[in-house]
Amino acid sequence: MAQLAYINKIGQFADCEVTLRGWLYNKRSSGKIHFLQVRDGTGIIQCVISRDDVSVESFEVAKKLTQESSLSITGIVHADKRAPSGYELQVTSLEEVALAAEYPIAPKEHGVGFLMDHRHLWLRSRRQAIIMRVRSSLVKAIRDYLDERGFTLLDAPIFTPNACEGTTTLFETNYFDRRAYLTQSGQLYMEAGAMAFGRVYCFGPTFRAEKSKTRRHLTEFWMVEPEVAFFDLDDDMDLMEDFVVTLVARLLDKHRKEIEELERDVTALEQVQKPFPRIRYDEAVEILKRKGVDFQWGGDFGGEDETLLSEEFDRPFMVHRFPMQCKAFYMKRDPENPKLSLSVDMLAPEGKGEIIGGGQREDDLATLEKSITQHKLPKEAFAWFVDLRRYGSVPHAGFGLGVERFLGWICGLHHVRETIPFPRLMDRLQP
Amino acid sequence: MAQLAYINKIGQFADCEVTLRGWLYNKRSSGKIHFLQVRDGTGIIQCVISRDDVSVESFEVAKKLTQESSLSITGIVHADKRAPSGYELQVTSLEEVALAAEYPIAPKEHGVGFLMDHRHLWLRSRRQAIIMRVRSSLVKAIRDYLDERGFTLLDAPIFTPNACEGTTTLFETNYFDRRAYLTQSGQLYMEAGAMAFGRVYCFGPTFRAEKSKTRRHLTEFWMVEPEVAFFDLDDDMDLMEDFVVTLVARLLDKHRKEIEELERDVTALEQVQKPFPRIRYDEAVEILKRKGVDFQWGGDFGGEDETLLSEEFDRPFMVHRFPMQCKAFYMKRDPENPKLSLSVDMLAPEGKGEIIGGGQREDDLATLEKSITQHKLPKEAFAWFVDLRRYGSVPHAGFGLGVERFLGWICGLHHVRETIPFPRLMDRLQP
Repeated sequence: MAQLAYINKIGQFADCEVTLRGWLYNKRSSGKIHFLQVRDGTGIIQCVISRDDVSVESFEVAKKLTQESSLSITGIVHADKRAPSGYELQVTSLEEVALAAEYPIAPKEHGVGFLMDHRHLWLRSRRQAIIMRVRSSLVKAIRDYLDERGFTLLDAPIFTPNACEGTTTLFETNYFDRRAYLTQSGQLYMEAGAMAFGRVYCFGPTFRAEKSKTRRHLTEFWMVEPEVAFFDLDDDMDLMEDFVVTLVARLLDKHRKEIEELERDVTALEQVQKPFPRIRYDEAVEILKRKGVDFQWGGDFGGEDETLLSEEFDRPFMVHRFPMQCKAFYMKRDPENPKLSLSVDMLAPEGKGEIIGGGQREDDLATLEKSITQHKLPKEAFAWFVDLRRYGSVPHAGFGLGVERFLGWICGLHHVRETIPFPRLMDRLQP
Repeated sequence: MAQLAYINKIGQFADCEVTLRGWLYNKRSSGKIHFLQVRDGTGIIQCVISRDDVSVESFEVAKKLTQESSLSITGIVHADKRAPSGYELQVTSLEEVALAAEYPIAPKEHGVGFLMDHRHLWLRSRRQAIIMRVRSSLVKAIRDYLDERGFTLLDAPIFTPNACEGTTTLFETNYFDRRAYLTQSGQLYMEAGAMAFGRVYCFGPTFRAEKSKTRRHLTEFWMVEPEVAFFDLDDDMDLMEDFVVTLVARLLDKHRKEIEELERDVTALEQVQKPFPRIRYDEAVEILKRKGVDFQWGGDFGGEDETLLSEEFDRPFMVHRFPMQCKAFYMKRDPENPKLSLSVDMLAPEGKGEIIGGGQREDDLATLEKSITQHKLPKEAFAWFVDLRRYGSVPHAGFGLGVERFLGWICGLHHVRETIPFPRLMDRLQP
């Protein structure tokens, strides 16, 4: 065995002999030469094995290796401009680790159900691997952005004692003979955190038991929720904008070639620059009406409405000041028009829908208590939340960004099921 | 309002006028002068307000401000060696944001139940804030370590379809008229990931419905689980060791003073250097017997046993090759003694118990299938997991580190409930 190497760092070993350990992704053969596409989890490289260059044993191994067999392969690294990785391996020896049985995922087209049933293997395919690597980088970019700007990570609890806004979309569990619900958002806890640490965020899985089979819904998805003390709606929109611009730039910087390989048009992502358009809800309603939609003032936008709105803009845009009636009890009223809330949604372009929801929170004790009563919520359950307005209340705002929708937009995916390693949908709990 | 500043960056503004926004942590007064301890989430600073230096209004505000009232305070930054933060603010003006009602957490001693009921406020106290900041840094250190070493983050699912090892410690939920369980570990999914990406990790909440009220148990806790293809037990122990040494060094580097403020003896942490002792399970049993424990070969160690073992070492240590009978079905047998498994636990010194569990996994198809039968596990449920041995099996190993126990050890905490923002225990689901 020579120096061990990974494919994504192979350039450091040009003209040297290295050993790679991985799996056979694909193979072409003539009588005297085999072209092995080998993957090791970091990339794919072509390995050329000539009968004249290797032992009889190595050549026989190359002959019999099946797709996804594991192997250890040694050879000289050659720069090759035609190769996708820029390098090729001239094999000097090859050993089999384990021969794979006939691999169920062939290059031919498979149905989505079949691929989802084989998600544990499907992840090995080039396309899925790229998406997961971009996801890994996105999570890191999100955390780095916030960590570098003085935010304290404060993990929100998953088990929550109360059904804030009805139980229909909540998963419930028996918690030592009490009822507990799986969190839909860590926001209320982040408000407590902002009063303690100034700038906080949580980033974890959240859950929605929605009986919905659309291409935008998962029952289990990851959300990052920053919350900042002494922030108003404008500050919040500035942060959202800077956050998204920074994330997109970083992903393009690191994964441009891979994203292009997904057949995603990256010019649309290059346009994600400040400033993002900021329109009032009322203006958005005007746009929809102008486009012939029979939209009733007061409601939230549906998927179709969002798509129509996004046709107006070449980058993400923000819609602010939604009617109070379509937002949660904790939203702050617009002092200039109490029918409106200081809320904001950010919508992705290209009809990819809402990627961020946020706003300024009600910080007045009496107003919040009244809102809880009006929403017929259990007062005791929110006593701790109301406390935050009793002991040193300050203006504060925050937002939530869903990782999967964001990633789906970045990668240009039609369905959110490819954005998470093991997707959970209404009819999908396996593997 | 002058230049806005945060307390942890106040040193950049020596002799300049700045405005801080935060909360009143404490106050001492003489007739002509008030000493305000102000916190802003990043730290605490003393602000001195003299009747001669400020307007009548500002001085009146200082007089009436109650503990935890929110405020905006402007003044000149002075270096002061006696001050814990190294600086003091000579106040030029003070505004109240919101006057706090009488704050329930007084400097006097409170019972744990009371403090836990007021966790949303307790987090504001100096001690809790330090622990949470160290936690935030620990999470970042963990992720950075793995990200910098070529690991791909692969979030494991929370909803799992099967009860791997009995349902007694699993939380269950109704998943669209099927049963789903909340994950206890992402390991099986990480094994699939390692075959696709070489090096992977998951890092998320895990759940145990243990009817246990010890100081080491939470029902909801965060665990990081790396898994690596082409890794054996020795590689795994090397990684665990390097991981822990790096994490401890980074936390000491960043938080030494704060950890000392918790009355934690940091010299014990400075001793966390390579190499860590590595002893066989059999040797550990010998130690216990020598110490007079009536320990039966084959069982796992209890809390008392762990404490006795840890007396032998001045740093974390590893116990490897536990009997197969006390480890999970997926553990690889020791080829030199089939009664033993290639498993390893890392125990913290000072009787803080197990902080890591890991080992090499069974990679032989027939042996794994036999093990599943012997453990009376449902074959179909593990069909996908067994697939990993059918299609390009390779030796692989990994481990799981629990954030809360690790943090409890670092911070020298008696009970794990202070290591997570909103702890969930058998009798604690609120706030």
